[in-house]
Amino acid sequence: MPNISAKGQAMPESPIRKLVPYAEKATEQGKEIFYLNIGQPDIKTPQVALDAVKNNDLEIISYSHSAGFASYREKLAGYYQRVNLPIESEDIIITTGGSEALLFAMGSITDPGDEVIIPEPFYANYNGFATSAGVEVVPVQAKFENGFALPPIAEFEKLITDRTKAILICNPGNPTGYLYTQEEIEQLSALVKKYDLFLVADEVYREFAYEGLKHFSVMAQEGLDEHAIMIDSVSKRYSMCGARIGCLVSKNKAVMQTAMKFAQARLSPPTFAQIASEAALETPQSYFNEVIEEYVQRRDTLIQGLESIPGVKVAKPNGAFYCIAELPVSDAEDFAKWMLEDFDYNGQTIMVAPAQGFYSTPNTGNNQVRIAYVLEQDNLKKAVEILRKGLEKYQAK
Amino acid sequence: MPNISAKGQAMPESPIRKLVPYAEKATEQGKEIFYLNIGQPDIKTPQVALDAVKNNDLEIISYSHSAGFASYREKLAGYYQRVNLPIESEDIIITTGGSEALLFAMGSITDPGDEVIIPEPFYANYNGFATSAGVEVVPVQAKFENGFALPPIAEFEKLITDRTKAILICNPGNPTGYLYTQEEIEQLSALVKKYDLFLVADEVYREFAYEGLKHFSVMAQEGLDEHAIMIDSVSKRYSMCGARIGCLVSKNKAVMQTAMKFAQARLSPPTFAQIASEAALETPQSYFNEVIEEYVQRRDTLIQGLESIPGVKVAKPNGAFYCIAELPVSDAEDFAKWMLEDFDYNGQTIMVAPAQGFYSTPNTGNNQVRIAYVLEQDNLKKAVEILRKGLEKYQAK
Ligand SMILES: Cc1ncc(COP(=O)(O)O)c(C=O)c1O
Ligand SMILES: Cc1ncc(COP(=O)(O)O)c(C=O)c1O
Repeated sequence: MPNISAKGQAMPESPIRKLVPYAEKATEQGKEIFYLNIGQPDIKTPQVALDAVKNNDLEIISYSHSAGFASYREKLAGYYQRVNLPIESEDIIITTGGSEALLFAMGSITDPGDEVIIPEPFYANYNGFATSAGVEVVPVQAKFENGFALPPIAEFEKLITDRTKAILICNPGNPTGYLYTQEEIEQLSALVKKYDLFLVADEVYREFAYEGLKHFSVMAQEGLDEHAIMIDSVSKRYSMCGARIGCLVSKNKAVMQTAMKFAQARLSPPTFAQIASEAALETPQSYFNEVIEEYVQRRDTLIQGLESIPGVKVAKPNGAFYCIAELPVSDAEDFAKWMLEDFDYNGQTIMVAPAQGFYSTPNTGNNQVRIAYVLEQDNLKKAVEILRKGLEKYQAK
Repeated sequence: MPNISAKGQAMPESPIRKLVPYAEKATEQGKEIFYLNIGQPDIKTPQVALDAVKNNDLEIISYSHSAGFASYREKLAGYYQRVNLPIESEDIIITTGGSEALLFAMGSITDPGDEVIIPEPFYANYNGFATSAGVEVVPVQAKFENGFALPPIAEFEKLITDRTKAILICNPGNPTGYLYTQEEIEQLSALVKKYDLFLVADEVYREFAYEGLKHFSVMAQEGLDEHAIMIDSVSKRYSMCGARIGCLVSKNKAVMQTAMKFAQARLSPPTFAQIASEAALETPQSYFNEVIEEYVQRRDTLIQGLESIPGVKVAKPNGAFYCIAELPVSDAEDFAKWMLEDFDYNGQTIMVAPAQGFYSTPNTGNNQVRIAYVLEQDNLKKAVEILRKGLEKYQAK
């Protein structure tokens, strides 16, 4: 029997999926689960996007241009320009989700053995993309205590080697909800210029910035054209995760030409989803206002609830729809399993994502969980109560 | 300015795109071009697939399961069983096109430096997938003279090394149109078992087998469960290339578990396209009968036409919708460019794909072109006449 690859063996399993068997068992036992572990919003996709697909009159679903519909790229550039990002359609390659944009970015700028520095905790699938590219993730630790702000630049500098090719940030952050300040982006810019690195910014949550705080994109940073690569996606912006449309954005021509070769090899991004995404650009501002308002309320409800539980601490998020909470337990994974297997409160329980899987450094964040606030407030309130009762009982064990 | 990766630099450009700038110039000059260079069928997508998308009533376009809709996998397994392939839904991972299935297969079974033996000429994007995986393509030459039948097994054996991980075939072949016989598949099976290799079969053209010849799948081969990996796609079967749905099929559990990790990292295949693909399984048999009939006629028209041109020889295809033709020129790429730049016949010209780009061995197939018969017969006839006139003039230069 032939062997699978060493690379395949090293491919990490998603930390979010690890507990799925426990959740399945809980469901079989008849428990109702509140899923706080996944980033699948319950917000409706904009009607204009759904309608465009329903009203399309294509008779042949052909390959599109490998960089995506020209019309879509044109309008998307306009969208960026309206939020003051000087992006032209030729700076954009439409991809199959932000996921594929991350793959193309890795493929274009790294070779096996190269290193990419990423503030941890970080989106766990970066590990998968890095492993499949043979690239080493070098974590630099952001601290719960200061809300996961950018680690000091000196910490990054200590980690830079001959093999370092890029710094990858997620802004606002999954799983932290941290929104980088303009000053932090400027510091990173100076750093990547000094060491001639790429700065890859995963900005798929760019619209989800709260309390009037402004998102500052790497594409807005002057003098960074040759270094900046932005990853974007319609998944969260329009609650359209299943469409599978994202994009890679850069002013660096060599990067774009190289990424195009990866894009051509896989032929084209999905047609129906491009129709939806192009139409989604017509989504009225009121949609976003309502969505942001809803998330702010959910966040406030959640944080307030969590902070009212003895021993629970939260790093207050200013963006995205996740937060990291410290629980009064030594092994949050064990606790999360226990909540599914051995606990219920009136037939209900919750599923959270142990934060350990978002850290690259072993044995870190063991007492932390990531909570996604993608549920209605009433359900979030119930979930918090279940967590409270669960912790009481777990600690009393 | 930071450098792109060595891998990125090595990424090949598609041989089909190389001539695009010449085609653009020809169009600017007002010439009408018959595109014989691309595999984008002009056949209508089945109405049942289009309708399913138009009638979908999703309100939130969510991520699907990373392996694809359970309902779709179930029905797809049924489809395979009806054509006597013993495939269960758990043997299937739905992918974003056959392209992604190829990527997952490569990632799951090869590490950088490994080798994959592929009969040449082959689908040029295999080079791109191999380069991005750091894998070396080892070509074994199929011969124009015998219609690109399987090279002798001894030729394969000569090429097998410690690093050989798999043999990759395309059946029926793009660009050759060659349909492997059951005996050839059996020979390959014995070979991969003897050397403990994987046999990856790209069967995206499986339905396109002509003259009553039966396609023989690697999944139909007994005793090959641990070795066989099948790549499939809805792109050509339902003329639905832009949907971007394919699948990876294998009975090898380790391969499937590993491929699932790649699938999970990129979250899910596109939702609208899965709706279309699931519905497409209801396409009436009459649709296929008509399509196959149409392709047989196109093929016959094309071959007859080509063979009537002095000095042109064709390897008659029994499957897919491509053929390789030898032209009475020494440099088919130069000729193809010249047809676009310097030639027209009543304001019309043709675009063909120089076959050199489908060979991995340098300086091979220089006098060959690939012609796709994806145009209506009238246009194919016109295209053949243009080729005849073009060759006359080119040879007289
Ligand atoms: C930080 C981050 N980046 C990228 C992605 C990929 O999203 P998609 O491929 O759906 O665009 C996600 C999805 O959850 C994410 O959280
Ligand atoms: C031989 C072969 N394999 C795979 C593909 C990929 O097709 P898709 O990704 O559209 O399924 C193609 C497309 O032309 C092909 O010709």
